Amino acid sequence: APRREVLFFPSPVTCTAALLGEPRPAPCPCPLPHGDSPLARLLRRLLSARRSLELCLFAFSSPQLGRAVQLLHRRGVRVRLVTDADYMALSGSQVGRLRQAGIQVRHDQESGYMHHKFAIVDKKMLITGSLNWTTQAIQNNRENVLIVEDAEYVEPFLAEFERIWEEYNPA
Amino acid sequence: APRREVLFFPSPVTCTAALLGEPRPAPCPCPLPHGDSPLARLLRRLLSARRSLELCLFAFSSPQLGRAVQLLHRRGVRVRLVTDADYMALSGSQVGRLRQAGIQVRHDQESGYMHHKFAIVDKKMLITGSLNWTTQAIQNNRENVLIVEDAEYVEPFLAEFERIWEEYNPA
Ligand SMILES: [Zn+2]
Ligand SMILES: [Zn+2]
Repeated sequence: APRREVLFFPSPVTCTAALLGEPRPAPCPCPLPHGDSPLARLLRRLLSARRSLELCLFAFSSPQLGRAVQLLHRRGVRVRLVTDADYMALSGSQVGRLRQAGIQVRHDQESGYMHHKFAIVDKKMLITGSLNWTTQAIQNNRENVLIVEDAEYVEPFLAEFERIWEEYNPA
Repeated sequence: APRREVLFFPSPVTCTAALLGEPRPAPCPCPLPHGDSPLARLLRRLLSARRSLELCLFAFSSPQLGRAVQLLHRRGVRVRLVTDADYMALSGSQVGRLRQAGIQVRHDQESGYMHHKFAIVDKKMLITGSLNWTTQAIQNNRENVLIVEDAEYVEPFLAEFERIWEEYNPA
């Protein structure tokens, strides 16, 4: 059966060191709670990628989500990131860091915003909603994220990603 | 089978007079195209409401969407609107107009944003995505809207709406 899940934010701040493979003594001595949270669930879905990750994100400044994407890239997952040019220039953006790590990044040249906030894992799981990938949104805003495996949604989002990817080709 | 549909924006500007029940000679003499568009589809889904419409919207300034909501209110559909206080104060917001028309409106008192952008039609169809209900977003941005009838998504969004509705109760 296709996975159908909804995450609501704001998320409590929980320790994500184990999820992100950061070396720590066991049990982790940090003062944060170590239980489940919407952010931990979002990270777990992303980190389930084995082959490909398409990211189409208006804003991307969350350090935890940035580390998750870098981890997938190091594991050999093919990561492609489309983002909005206006937001990319802001301080705190993860986009420059990801590009330096060797991840393919393209951005719009348009007057309107590239306002999507979605990810596609292994071409079969769509992660989409109102949540921009910023610490402000994760910790302070009321936001939603849907985890979707129904082809009726995944396929059109994949096609939208490929359209934008080609359109933003600088070549 | 549950309806599963995705709308992508920006939407071409099309005539919405017939959808919104505005009196016009037939065929409509206005210079706009009269075919289908993502905005026309969104309006049609909203206007299918017969009993209830829950709206949970960060930003609401689109005149066409405002007219659709007023039309539903006049038809006797029970409309409830939750919105973000910061955005509500901006000029061009439809919220004051809807409140004057007798529609129940509640807004947050919080520091974080109420950043959702969803609607629930007759407690069985969820309309959610990245799209703020503004003309800028509809006509200029890359945005997505999902039309969803699967209970695994509709039920948690309804519960989230009721939670927020109670929490924002000024009484
Ligand atoms: Zn820890
Ligand atoms: Zn017309």
